[in-house]
Amino acid sequence: MIPKNHPRYESLILREKIKKAFCEGYLADSGLIAHGRGEAFDYLIGEKTIATACESIKAAVAALILAKNPVISVNGNSVALVMDDIVSLSKVLNVKIEINLFYRTNERVKIIKNLFKRRGVCVLGSDEDELLFIDGIESPRSTASKEGIYSADLVLVSLEDGDRTEILVNSGKKVIAIDLNPLSRTAQMANITIVDNIIRAIPLMIKIANELKEKDEKSLKKIIANFSNEKNLKESLESIELK
Amino acid sequence: MIPKNHPRYESLILREKIKKAFCEGYLADSGLIAHGRGEAFDYLIGEKTIATACESIKAAVAALILAKNPVISVNGNSVALVMDDIVSLSKVLNVKIEINLFYRTNERVKIIKNLFKRRGVCVLGSDEDELLFIDGIESPRSTASKEGIYSADLVLVSLEDGDRTEILVNSGKKVIAIDLNPLSRTAQMANITIVDNIIRAIPLMIKIANELKEKDEKSLKKIIANFSNEKNLKESLESIELK
Repeated sequence: MIPKNHPRYESLILREKIKKAFCEGYLADSGLIAHGRGEAFDYLIGEKTIATACESIKAAVAALILAKNPVISVNGNSVALVMDDIVSLSKVLNVKIEINLFYRTNERVKIIKNLFKRRGVCVLGSDEDELLFIDGIESPRSTASKEGIYSADLVLVSLEDGDRTEILVNSGKKVIAIDLNPLSRTAQMANITIVDNIIRAIPLMIKIANELKEKDEKSLKKIIANFSNEKNLKESLESIELK
Repeated sequence: MIPKNHPRYESLILREKIKKAFCEGYLADSGLIAHGRGEAFDYLIGEKTIATACESIKAAVAALILAKNPVISVNGNSVALVMDDIVSLSKVLNVKIEINLFYRTNERVKIIKNLFKRRGVCVLGSDEDELLFIDGIESPRSTASKEGIYSADLVLVSLEDGDRTEILVNSGKKVIAIDLNPLSRTAQMANITIVDNIIRAIPLMIKIANELKEKDEKSLKKIIANFSNEKNLKESLESIELK
C-alpha cells in the first residue's frame, strides 16, 4: 500500500497499474520501460495538462468528429492506465477500438480483448478479425484489421512506435498521437500531437467531445484549419521547464 | 537481434541487458520502469557525458581516494549495465562493493552475489553479512552491512531511491550519486552528483582514477574544495537542450 501522503503518490499508483498489467500478462517487459520514459517526460511538463495540449486536444476531437472511419488504437500501456476512459471516448464519438501491440502475442491480444468484453465492448484487431498488411508492407508493424485501422481515415494512437506511425502516415491516414515526448518520431510525424499523459488527455477529450459534438461542420473545420502541429510542438517544448 | 544501423542501436542494446537481468531474476519490475526514466533523461542530455559531469567525476574520484572506508553500492540496474566496470573501479581504488536493493529479496541478492563471485569478487550486503540499521532506523531502506555501508564514510550510489539517500546523508556519510535526473531527490541531496549514464560515467571514473591516484593529498583536497554541487547541478540543468 502506498501512503496517500507520499510526495509521488499519483505517479506510484500509475506505476502499480502498469506492474499489475505486466503480472496479468498483457503488457510486455518493454511496456514497463516505456512507462518509465513517460514518467520522466510527464515530470518535466509538471504532471499537468499544458496549454498547448488543450489546443491539440480540441483539434483532435474536431478531427475525430469529422472523420469517416476513425479508430482508436490501444496497446498494453493504454489499457492498463485508461481503459474505461477509452471506452467512454469511443462511445461519445462512436469510434471503433482496435488492439495493436508492438510485441504482439495471441495471448496478450486475447487478454485485452476479454478485458473489453467484460465491459460489453467488442474490439477489433484480434485473430478472429481479418488482418491485412497496410500498403502490402509485410511487417508486424503494418498489420491492421480490415474493418478498422486498415480502412480508417483517422487513427488515434498513444505511446506508439515510430515505425508504426510512419507506416500509418505514409499510407495517407491522418494520425492523432498522444505522446509525452515532443521530440519522438511519433510526435514529429503525427498530424496532431497531444503532448500529455493519457490519464489526463483522454478524460479531457471526452469533455471536449461533448462540447464540440453540438457544433456544425464549418466550426469544426475552422478549429482544424487554425491548428499547426509544428507550432504546437515547438511551444510544447518551450513549456518544459527545467528549474 | 537489433540491426547495427538502427538509429537507437546503443539504447536498444542497454534495454536488452535490462530485460535479460529481469529474466534472470535479479532485477525487479520497478527496475525496468526506472530504466525507462533513465532513457528519457539520457536522451535529453544528448546521450553523451556533459562537461559538468566530467567536473563532478573528478571531484568524486578525489573523494573516493581520500575516503577511509568508501563503498560502492550496487543494485539490479547497475549490475545489469556495468558490473565489469564496477569491479574494475573497485579494484583501481580499493573500494568495497555492497549489494543494496530497493525491492530486496534473498533470491535477488543471491543471484547478484554469485555473478560477482564468478568474477572472483566478494561483495557485501548478503544475508551472510551482519546487517544493521543505519541510525537505528528500522526500515528496509536503512539496512547496511557492518563492514560496509554501515561503517562507511563515503558511499557511491547509482539510480538510488531518495529515501535511502536521505538516510545516508543524515547519518553523516558523504554520498556520491550517479543520477541522470538532476532534479531527483537523490541528485539534490548528494554531496557530489554525477549527471550521466552509468555506462559512460564508470569507465570515465576508472580513467580519472588512474590519473588522480598519482596526485598528493593536497591536490586532491583542492579539487574537492573547488567543487560546488549546487552550481554543478544548476549548470547540468542548463545544458539539457530541448530542441
